[in-house]
Amino acid sequence: MPPAISMITLLTDFGLRDYFVASMKGVILNINSQARIVDLSHDVPPQQIEEAAYLLKSSYRYFPDGTVHVAVVDPGVGSNRRALLVSTSRFYFLAPDNGLLSYIFDEELSVEVRVIENKQYRLDSEGATFDGRDLFAPAAAWLTKGQSPGSFGRLTRDYVTLPIEEPTVAHKVLSGHIVYVDHYGNLISNITPLHLKELQGVARKSSSDVTIRLGGTEIQGLVVCYADGDKTTPQALINSNGQVEVFIKEGNAAESLKCGRGEKIAVS
Amino acid sequence: MPPAISMITLLTDFGLRDYFVASMKGVILNINSQARIVDLSHDVPPQQIEEAAYLLKSSYRYFPDGTVHVAVVDPGVGSNRRALLVSTSRFYFLAPDNGLLSYIFDEELSVEVRVIENKQYRLDSEGATFDGRDLFAPAAAWLTKGQSPGSFGRLTRDYVTLPIEEPTVAHKVLSGHIVYVDHYGNLISNITPLHLKELQGVARKSSSDVTIRLGGTEIQGLVVCYADGDKTTPQALINSNGQVEVFIKEGNAAESLKCGRGEKIAVS
Amino acid sequence: MPPAISMITLLTDFGLRDYFVASMKGVILNINSQARIVDLSHDVPPQQIEEAAYLLKSSYRYFPDGTVHVAVVDPGVGSNRRALLVSTSRFYFLAPDNGLLSYIFDEELSVEVRVIENKQYRLDSEGATFDGRDLFAPAAAWLTKGQSPGSFGRLTRDYVTLPIEEPTVAHKVLSGHIVYVDHYGNLISNITPLHLKELQGVARKSSSDVTIRLGGTEIQGLVVCYADGDKTTPQALINSNGQVEVFIKEGNAAESLKCGRGEKIAVS
Repeated sequence: MPPAISMITLLTDFGLRDYFVASMKGVILNINSQARIVDLSHDVPPQQIEEAAYLLKSSYRYFPDGTVHVAVVDPGVGSNRRALLVSTSRFYFLAPDNGLLSYIFDEELSVEVRVIENKQYRLDSEGATFDGRDLFAPAAAWLTKGQSPGSFGRLTRDYVTLPIEEPTVAHKVLSGHIVYVDHYGNLISNITPLHLKELQGVARKSSSDVTIRLGGTEIQGLVVCYADGDKTTPQALINSNGQVEVFIKEGNAAESLKCGRGEKIAVS
Repeated sequence: MPPAISMITLLTDFGLRDYFVASMKGVILNINSQARIVDLSHDVPPQQIEEAAYLLKSSYRYFPDGTVHVAVVDPGVGSNRRALLVSTSRFYFLAPDNGLLSYIFDEELSVEVRVIENKQYRLDSEGATFDGRDLFAPAAAWLTKGQSPGSFGRLTRDYVTLPIEEPTVAHKVLSGHIVYVDHYGNLISNITPLHLKELQGVARKSSSDVTIRLGGTEIQGLVVCYADGDKTTPQALINSNGQVEVFIKEGNAAESLKCGRGEKIAVS
Repeated sequence: MPPAISMITLLTDFGLRDYFVASMKGVILNINSQARIVDLSHDVPPQQIEEAAYLLKSSYRYFPDGTVHVAVVDPGVGSNRRALLVSTSRFYFLAPDNGLLSYIFDEELSVEVRVIENKQYRLDSEGATFDGRDLFAPAAAWLTKGQSPGSFGRLTRDYVTLPIEEPTVAHKVLSGHIVYVDHYGNLISNITPLHLKELQGVARKSSSDVTIRLGGTEIQGLVVCYADGDKTTPQALINSNGQVEVFIKEGNAAESLKCGRGEKIAVS
């Protein structure tokens, strides 16, 4: 079980304009005034669970042991969808049972999954539309106060996971897809150096002998960094998440190539 | 008088792009390096005092006793508009005297209102356009250091309040209006379960026997949660602020219905 | 050398939507869980080094002595552009060597500039695209743990500075330009009261005898605050950064006047 430290991250689609995120923080601080709260992101597009799952995957591991990661993208709030508390060797995760934690289930070797059933920590409110404030925030705060995971509810082995599609290889062509488009318009794929290595035998970083096809464009070779590109031609590199990424130097590749999440990408 | 803890919230229309919010935080931390600062929201549309007032009303109560709430939407900055320091049983509020604290005056039983007149805590700067940094931030920081409210200025009973329109009942029809549109496009009204109860005798949560009219649309009954809606038809529910809210499941009701703040809503 | 306190500010063009900023914070907190991190801004337009430099200039001085200011707008990441650690009498600055610290070099009397060469503090990652997380965040965290600047790399006198254009005077006309447009659309120039004083002999704040020309518009005199304007006519004032600023009361001067950064402004 991870240590109880007072570190909490918040990942939501609540935006920063309304009172939602601040209310969650207020509830947390009212229970544990020493809690240290870090915004993971609140600008997940409304109800985009897969996008939130990718953001969590890309950042959770950098936080200190014992951090409580709270992720609330929750179109089913107030219905009979369940709320989960997941413990791994290093972290706690709190999220609706809608697939948001799919990468955690996939990547973490040991996960203990509980259904949050105990109403005792829940805030009493009139409506049923804001579990972020009324259920997840108090649960996170009480965890940082040392409350044991077991006191929130029973273990379960039955929870929602989204399909995580791995790239496939056929006839020396590696086929993947774009999993995330960042705010620069960079197109991030699910292809990693490991996949490239399987394809090629060796190869790493700037390898000139691969061809990348994406949305009608053909890119020759991988460069090392954004500065290696030129300002009109799309280029590809291995980014610091260890994924093949297509970019245009100081430009917006997603707009220029008219590509988005889900777009097929092929490496040969 | 609330205890002096080192918790400060900030609510402004300064946005997060410029240097304004960071300057306020710097000033606070330079006076009290132990201050814990929470962003309430900085994306209030420029000069929209009523919107800021609603955001404050919706979140201030969740914070720990002694929290200093700083709210700066301040078109009159630098003119002879006054700055207020308000103490309630649980909180401090700092804001320009322009109605921003109207809901606080309305909801809190005991308020002590002072005019910030003492220049001693004010930052010296060349211009007169940034009281957020030069007046409110240092006042908040000194309050968290235990400085007494009385040291900032004299009590007053004369301060600006915006009219808070309550729903009215006539001929078994409850007439209210939209007070806030959140970033999902949900339309939040000033009608509460208490108003519905007055209208109907009993009724709570999902009640099928009410009809809601808003911008040419008629909605039959209240559902419990967003998942109860369908993706094309507007529905209504009691939200977790205890207010009747019109939404479209995974859609944007404000855009679809072409409604905004101020729009009339009727329940019968 | 400034004291080692655990205060870090972050200024980037990473936006708040993606996982970039959260990853930096995770890395920092994993090294120093007591670090207090303040967002300066993350909404610098992509790759706009000059805009970031102006934001830093406008806010760094308000923070407590010992604060580590991290600024990462870094189109050259992963190339041979160098990373700098700068110590002044009050602060530390970490930034790529691309001119982002130009105002610091200009304004601070004593600067000690080092190249970050020591790889020991660097995070190991597959790609070369995210020095914010892999180089700057750990360096900042280790500085707050008391690591000496000297342990990061050798002193240098050779670093990039952007030209800082001062206003010029000719024939009793002061010629400057717009250096920043804030999110209200206010147009902030590089002309200060000191320049006006040189022009006029005396004069300060509301002086009716100056004429300001900007993008085809002529403004007569300086007012004191935004409330002094009217809602259709552009006005000018000395803002709280000590700079001549053109605004429209409760309007957007940049849009109305179709002016942006770089636009010429003349005072006579």
